[in-house]
Amino acid sequence: MTSTATGAPTTPAGPGTAPTQAAAPVEIAALRDALLLARRGPRHGPNPRVGCVLLGPDGTVLGEGWHAGAGTPHAEVAALADAARRGAGTTGATAVVTLEPCNHTGRTGPCTEALLAAGVRRVVVAVPDPNPVAAGGADRLRKAGVDVLTGVLEDEGRTLLGTWLASVERGRPFVTLKIATTLDGRVAAADGTSRWITSDVARHHAHDLRAEVDAIAVGTGTVLTDDPALTARNAAGELHTDQPLRVVVGHRDVPADARLHGPGGELVHARTHDPAEVLRILGDREVRHLLVEGGPTLAAAFLRAGLVDEVHAYVAPVLLGAGPAAVADLGVTTIGDAVRLTTRSVLPLGPDVLVVATPELAHATPTPQPTQED
Amino acid sequence: MTSTATGAPTTPAGPGTAPTQAAAPVEIAALRDALLLARRGPRHGPNPRVGCVLLGPDGTVLGEGWHAGAGTPHAEVAALADAARRGAGTTGATAVVTLEPCNHTGRTGPCTEALLAAGVRRVVVAVPDPNPVAAGGADRLRKAGVDVLTGVLEDEGRTLLGTWLASVERGRPFVTLKIATTLDGRVAAADGTSRWITSDVARHHAHDLRAEVDAIAVGTGTVLTDDPALTARNAAGELHTDQPLRVVVGHRDVPADARLHGPGGELVHARTHDPAEVLRILGDREVRHLLVEGGPTLAAAFLRAGLVDEVHAYVAPVLLGAGPAAVADLGVTTIGDAVRLTTRSVLPLGPDVLVVATPELAHATPTPQPTQED
Repeated sequence: MTSTATGAPTTPAGPGTAPTQAAAPVEIAALRDALLLARRGPRHGPNPRVGCVLLGPDGTVLGEGWHAGAGTPHAEVAALADAARRGAGTTGATAVVTLEPCNHTGRTGPCTEALLAAGVRRVVVAVPDPNPVAAGGADRLRKAGVDVLTGVLEDEGRTLLGTWLASVERGRPFVTLKIATTLDGRVAAADGTSRWITSDVARHHAHDLRAEVDAIAVGTGTVLTDDPALTARNAAGELHTDQPLRVVVGHRDVPADARLHGPGGELVHARTHDPAEVLRILGDREVRHLLVEGGPTLAAAFLRAGLVDEVHAYVAPVLLGAGPAAVADLGVTTIGDAVRLTTRSVLPLGPDVLVVATPELAHATPTPQPTQED
Repeated sequence: MTSTATGAPTTPAGPGTAPTQAAAPVEIAALRDALLLARRGPRHGPNPRVGCVLLGPDGTVLGEGWHAGAGTPHAEVAALADAARRGAGTTGATAVVTLEPCNHTGRTGPCTEALLAAGVRRVVVAVPDPNPVAAGGADRLRKAGVDVLTGVLEDEGRTLLGTWLASVERGRPFVTLKIATTLDGRVAAADGTSRWITSDVARHHAHDLRAEVDAIAVGTGTVLTDDPALTARNAAGELHTDQPLRVVVGHRDVPADARLHGPGGELVHARTHDPAEVLRILGDREVRHLLVEGGPTLAAAFLRAGLVDEVHAYVAPVLLGAGPAAVADLGVTTIGDAVRLTTRSVLPLGPDVLVVATPELAHATPTPQPTQED
């Protein structure tokens, strides 16, 4: 390593390091490449999407890597392996990485130690690690004399991390509530029939969302009424390779002949009415993104508990005039207490419209409400 | 007049006329101008928007006119007056007009006679007159030896005429149903409060629609619950010059202190539960475009009677979980019987979304349903 000890007192880094330099254009360009590399990783799963580019002192690219999912090497280790494969020495190199290197031993060893062992001199990071278990990587590196710069292209890095980041920051799975309604807010006709309210364009879109989440939850009432398979399928009706966990919330049993026992993700039966307990169960299973698909009682329970982070509302040009509404009683009796959302996007999907919106306030109640679905 | 009598037997025109020539480029250009002139007329009222350009034999413009609303000269007469003002002779002229000239004496004399008296030799028309009372203009002109060509730029002409054309074709006012709901289909909270579900952007948009229609209808239940003024106001809250008729449907009295008695359009109380009867009453008053604003019972009555031509659904990013829905019972019990609409447009309005859709089928029932609102 070539770090010089000037002992500049103004640097926030540890003693014995030089002041951290702002990111050079070649480093920013490498970080943009790392953001693209990161997108090669899966959008779901317990781990974030991360990309890494190793630069030589002259700015040449020594190696590139990205994280391909839990149980595979982290991006930094993959980039070091790529450099070794190319025969490029990494002593004095700069690691440009989209997320702060981890400092803990999980399924793989700490990336900090791998970078130090490889002789990396400087690390440029987009997003500081929000994970209380894995964080501390920058400190560890600085203590070992490495020059660490964080927060470069941080917005782009946060966008890349998406719901993983929100989940880690909240300490629980990120929750998307999906509703699919008529223009008059019905999710089914008076006799319970609901196939199909939305168009196949909207349904394919919803299946793509299923393929991005880690788990899908429904209440037992929906299981008994609709007998959903809760699988992620492509437009041809074929199952995606990765299937989300299938979560049933409530006390009633899932019938032995239910489609939930057919091909698809693992079935988890959360015998509780407490959304927070559901999220604890799923958090223990490393679920980062939960899709709540219904019915109205489960939707209301998550909303009342303030545990909905995002609403995906598919609205179809249909009128029913009767039948169950998308959301059961929220305890709201007057308009001033309505759950207000901020619209994030409006997307026409064939004849239907998808409105994506996020709650303006956490409408948490101290006592989680039972779902009353069984 | 310079018409030559070749007696060509293949022409659909009367005896003694030459075959009708296709529209010349100068005529098509004049018709586009006439379509623009027509748009200077009011969007509401009993009469259509019409524009007329008079061309000399050499293609020069002799005069221009448009119809400025009931009681004012028709576009053809206005164009002839313009030519006279310019000192341009009209003998042998071509009249290019967006709608077939009328052949009856209403508030003004028949345009056919005015054109004949002016020596017009050829008439180029976009849209044939669908009005059984006023139609026959082309026949009258042909019998007098005038060369008449219809259906030029007819699509543009029909678009210009909008709901007026639909109203005349249906023989009743065109009906737009407006609903303004939460994402879960509620129009008010459980206690009846509903101000404001939609944003001011959406409300201004809705006021612009009010300024375009001839009448606005609500049920007596809405009068008693919401005390609406049913006025068309601009963004500053000022009343537009033209105000739509205010129509109350149902048997209960309008309270003496209701805002409906305040400044605004004339108040019409239709003491019936039959939407067809409402339309007969309004048709007799030359209403071409009725906006049904609610409540749920009146909306359902019009839908059940198959008397809704267009739905404007404002959807706000709000969840209520309880409260009245946008549409009351339609007699639909299973999803296959849902009222399905065709989406015409999706327009984000601030945080809200406006979906404009038209019913795919007339869901008429032989016996109109009572609104049951009082």
